[in-house]
Amino acid sequence: MLEGAVNCSILKRAQDKGLAKICIHNLRDYTDDKHNRVDDYPFGGEAGMVMQIEPIDNVITHLKSQRQYDEVIYTSPDGETFDQKMANTMSSLENMIILCGHYKGIDFRIREHLITKEISIGDYVLTGGELAAAIISDAVVRLIPGAIGDEQSALSDSFQDNLLAPPVYTRPAEYKGWRVPDILLSGHQAKIDEWKLQQSLERTKRLRPDLLEK
Amino acid sequence: MLEGAVNCSILKRAQDKGLAKICIHNLRDYTDDKHNRVDDYPFGGEAGMVMQIEPIDNVITHLKSQRQYDEVIYTSPDGETFDQKMANTMSSLENMIILCGHYKGIDFRIREHLITKEISIGDYVLTGGELAAAIISDAVVRLIPGAIGDEQSALSDSFQDNLLAPPVYTRPAEYKGWRVPDILLSGHQAKIDEWKLQQSLERTKRLRPDLLEK
Repeated sequence: MLEGAVNCSILKRAQDKGLAKICIHNLRDYTDDKHNRVDDYPFGGEAGMVMQIEPIDNVITHLKSQRQYDEVIYTSPDGETFDQKMANTMSSLENMIILCGHYKGIDFRIREHLITKEISIGDYVLTGGELAAAIISDAVVRLIPGAIGDEQSALSDSFQDNLLAPPVYTRPAEYKGWRVPDILLSGHQAKIDEWKLQQSLERTKRLRPDLLEK
Repeated sequence: MLEGAVNCSILKRAQDKGLAKICIHNLRDYTDDKHNRVDDYPFGGEAGMVMQIEPIDNVITHLKSQRQYDEVIYTSPDGETFDQKMANTMSSLENMIILCGHYKGIDFRIREHLITKEISIGDYVLTGGELAAAIISDAVVRLIPGAIGDEQSALSDSFQDNLLAPPVYTRPAEYKGWRVPDILLSGHQAKIDEWKLQQSLERTKRLRPDLLEK
């Protein structure tokens, strides 16, 4: 599930360049259960399955014996909401573990004793934390200097200054009667830049006024 | 990038059962460019590359000739914020297209003329829309009746009643001195249920008071 997601595109390039390293660990390799089970029924009659504490403690302890970690993250709807500011901060960390929950969740004692930060990527429920971990990895790694080809491109992304990005257009200038705004073809860079800023402001005011209050 | 993410776990099971079908289309198959390019430089001197209108129009037109679509979705930081309520609504739709942007974004005329709904999965910037599309697919498909084994499990997920889920625990009852709360081992189901509700309320009040106002 994760191999493809974290070994493509920018994440692949960043790893090829030695800017980041993403290792996927299978919890089933850290259980003593003869069927490699890592989950069990919840206490108290809840529906669904719960991931057990021991395999997770085993893998975290093993990893910590090899290097220091800045954070041991668990992705959960309860966590602090992930945003661009958090991605910026995390892009300067050295090492982190992201624990992907699955099924109904993980034994709560893991969260109390082993996890240092809980992150939610949004107010929705996923089958597991794998895709959330991929999202965090992508958002963070692409901010490491050198990870995307043109660093200007990241600086003009949405959210970097609490503004949505302006509309972008490319060739052809006309397609089925739909034209690119004349200003963008004018060649007057100062006017173009002003138009872009106004578009950003207008779009942010209309679509995400909350960003302007931050 | 997407194959693994949408053909695992619940998404795989739902497709195997015939409850959902996820088809991945490669835009490069819909371009007339001899190098299969689907992007070009932006008008107006912006950094980064922009996806062109023609291949996207081609694939959407092709798909629409085969069946009716309820929505043509574009994942973008500008979009309406995805949440569990939107996932619930979308789980009852018949067919939808999710267009994954990449690079700096897509030609804005696509958004004006071909897209019916723009969705943001959170306030952060990703390399592309692929992971966002996988997130939406996962959150939506798991809500289709029959997709997850125990339907009760989805009903007691976080957000289904604007409450965070209570803590869950599984065997062993004691691990390294860390014990499961006694109440969960008591066998008094009514008291257990009340404890769970109180835990949900307390966690929501403390961690996400905004949910209680909805």
